[in-house]
Amino acid sequence: MSMRTEAESLELTDLQETWRLLTPEERLEAFNQLDRHEAEDFFLELPARDQHELMMLMPASQRRSWMRLLPPDDAADLVQEAHEEEREGLLALLDEATRREVAALLAYAEDDAGGLMNPRYARVRPDVSADEAISYLRRQARAVLEIINYVYVLDADQKLLGVVSFRDLFAAPGDQKVRDLMSSDVVTASEQMDQEELARLFAQTNLQAIPVVDASGRMKGIVTVDDIVDVIQEEATEDIQKIGGTQALEAPYLKVGLVEMVRKRVGWLAVLFVSEMLTTAAMSRFEAEIARAVVLAVFIPLIISSGGNSGSQASTLVIRAMALGEVKMGDWWRVVHRELRSGLAMGLVLGVIGLTRVELWQLLFHTYGSHHLLVGLTIAISVLGVVTWGTLSGSMLPFLLKRFRLDPASASAPFVATLVDVTGIVIYFTAASVILRGALL
Amino acid sequence: MSMRTEAESLELTDLQETWRLLTPEERLEAFNQLDRHEAEDFFLELPARDQHELMMLMPASQRRSWMRLLPPDDAADLVQEAHEEEREGLLALLDEATRREVAALLAYAEDDAGGLMNPRYARVRPDVSADEAISYLRRQARAVLEIINYVYVLDADQKLLGVVSFRDLFAAPGDQKVRDLMSSDVVTASEQMDQEELARLFAQTNLQAIPVVDASGRMKGIVTVDDIVDVIQEEATEDIQKIGGTQALEAPYLKVGLVEMVRKRVGWLAVLFVSEMLTTAAMSRFEAEIARAVVLAVFIPLIISSGGNSGSQASTLVIRAMALGEVKMGDWWRVVHRELRSGLAMGLVLGVIGLTRVELWQLLFHTYGSHHLLVGLTIAISVLGVVTWGTLSGSMLPFLLKRFRLDPASASAPFVATLVDVTGIVIYFTAASVILRGALL
Repeated sequence: MSMRTEAESLELTDLQETWRLLTPEERLEAFNQLDRHEAEDFFLELPARDQHELMMLMPASQRRSWMRLLPPDDAADLVQEAHEEEREGLLALLDEATRREVAALLAYAEDDAGGLMNPRYARVRPDVSADEAISYLRRQARAVLEIINYVYVLDADQKLLGVVSFRDLFAAPGDQKVRDLMSSDVVTASEQMDQEELARLFAQTNLQAIPVVDASGRMKGIVTVDDIVDVIQEEATEDIQKIGGTQALEAPYLKVGLVEMVRKRVGWLAVLFVSEMLTTAAMSRFEAEIARAVVLAVFIPLIISSGGNSGSQASTLVIRAMALGEVKMGDWWRVVHRELRSGLAMGLVLGVIGLTRVELWQLLFHTYGSHHLLVGLTIAISVLGVVTWGTLSGSMLPFLLKRFRLDPASASAPFVATLVDVTGIVIYFTAASVILRGALL
Repeated sequence: MSMRTEAESLELTDLQETWRLLTPEERLEAFNQLDRHEAEDFFLELPARDQHELMMLMPASQRRSWMRLLPPDDAADLVQEAHEEEREGLLALLDEATRREVAALLAYAEDDAGGLMNPRYARVRPDVSADEAISYLRRQARAVLEIINYVYVLDADQKLLGVVSFRDLFAAPGDQKVRDLMSSDVVTASEQMDQEELARLFAQTNLQAIPVVDASGRMKGIVTVDDIVDVIQEEATEDIQKIGGTQALEAPYLKVGLVEMVRKRVGWLAVLFVSEMLTTAAMSRFEAEIARAVVLAVFIPLIISSGGNSGSQASTLVIRAMALGEVKMGDWWRVVHRELRSGLAMGLVLGVIGLTRVELWQLLFHTYGSHHLLVGLTIAISVLGVVTWGTLSGSMLPFLLKRFRLDPASASAPFVATLVDVTGIVIYFTAASVILRGALL
């Protein structure tokens, strides 16, 4: 193993930088130019999707050693990226024992703790001494493929009794029993725990690994925090894309083909467009009012957008708070209270700005004639109503979606804006017909 | 150390669940009811903000042991949460050596690698054997407060020569030299590396820890992935909140007071509201056209919202791709190409839907009189123009903001929608005056 110079090290970093821009064939060529040790490090760090792509381009004879390089959970991820008909062949590349482990992992849903976990972890019996545990782990180390910062203490039935950190095992007097070193206060995950919940558990506890146990307390594997970093990034990306009114792209932006890109985006846009046609229907009912007072029409974009903006804001805050576990279903009433008061306060501020705008233009340009105060009042009261309503409905929509087991993140900014636009028009013209009756209308 | 029963374990989990809902005083009370060992575990897992809150409520005499429980990087985070005038007192609780380390960490910006790193990591010289390294690390373990899954190989000047995983050190024959076990191909971070970049590096490499080195290659500390999990969650939350058109809340939703909440939200809403007044100005220029053909007014919300929706979509996709490092400044021209073509395709689809809507209503209700085809064509062409323009400007706005060193995530859905609304009105009435001249206008 030779010492790499600064320049070589930069080259590898370069490949990591440019990787995303290369075609699959260019990737294989660049990959083949790395020396074996570098290539192994590089391969282990790739996402499963890229590992699979690369492997399928290699001659079949080369695949086995790359496949066997992977720990079982990563091998399972790679197989999950493959087409149905490739899977059998990929599994056949593994040794018998690993194949059984990988097959067991594939039986779990990809997004569950069971699907993310590694079945090879460091384990000892409670009645060995620290010295014995360390020698035992040194012999185990070749098989324990991933990290070993926690050692799990199991009884003869594989039931999880406790955990001891490597640090504590190391620092302990050599003759101390593991039973007296371990903490029996173990944070565990069930096999079915969803990856979003796992991510929250890692964020809450700052642990490096969390053991997965079955219903009867038997330990099945560990999920390590490095696997969760990718999960958190993915989940946030999905939520952000949904909030922006797209289906989740599920691939890097520049890697998505044009047809795929349009397909993922135009669906939502078309739904919103058709829904927004309700505004046309709503406006048509007020055609007579518009014909009598065209001045009403010019404020429509201003009024309805204030509802859309406050609604997007409220729904985005609630969606994120739900994803972080800060707000639960049971909190909906507290959220109603908060948002109603926030909405009224913000509506009041914007309403006053709107009134000021009308009066200022009247003063400067005499734009609104003798009924300027009534026009200003109509604007102010409509904005107050629309902002309050927008805030309230934007904050409640994620709860409603979650109640019907839909993803709260689907309450995207454009979706909320569309919903609020229709009600905004109704609120505006209702306020106008009350306030301006006998004056302009 | 007693074995905890299922029920007790549930109680601790309950506290973790209900923690967010408790007042500071209730938190201290609940915390004081835990036995010492549980309390220590619980305290170590709390966010720095909560650790600080709890500590300031304790009698001064109890603070020292809690402060000394923390590793230096966490102690530094806690001090950073404190008010200026409390900091000296908190630092004084530490022992001399740790105080120096914490003071050094406080000199780094909180969001840099230097501010996140832990200066206590496992280190060995290259020429010791695996057996010697393991005995040496057992003696070091009491001081090496955090995890030790990587052992860093340093020369006498503290220059980083390589890294060996604990697994490899363990699995090696006892007499093998560390120099022959280590990998010299080390992914490192500079002290100034920003936390967002660090998060990307962790996501790319799947490492558990990354060493921080100064300009001359001397190792200063390690950043561990568990610290980065919080960072990634925070960064995503900030981006999501900005995309939704709020200032970042910087605290859990339900913990933000009403006044603070309104303050963080109404600013942006007011800016958007005042900007949206440009639509009123734009509409006023077309008052004569509206008076002559009121039917034009009823389509305004539909037309401008299609631009806002497509713009929000495009900006959100680009913002997230930038945050993940998938799209860089230099990619702007590729993005223009993609978005122009996507925008045209999506505009075409929506335009056809719009035309169909007009013709369908004409067939069923004779809504649009003899010029129905011209009205439909006006709608279709406006939607095509508005969607293409919305998509293009939505995708370019994050680049523009980044170019001027502003946060691309500020190109929020409401902001883009507001910008596109004004141009949408101009596009619509221009199309109308060309197509409908001599007919309706």
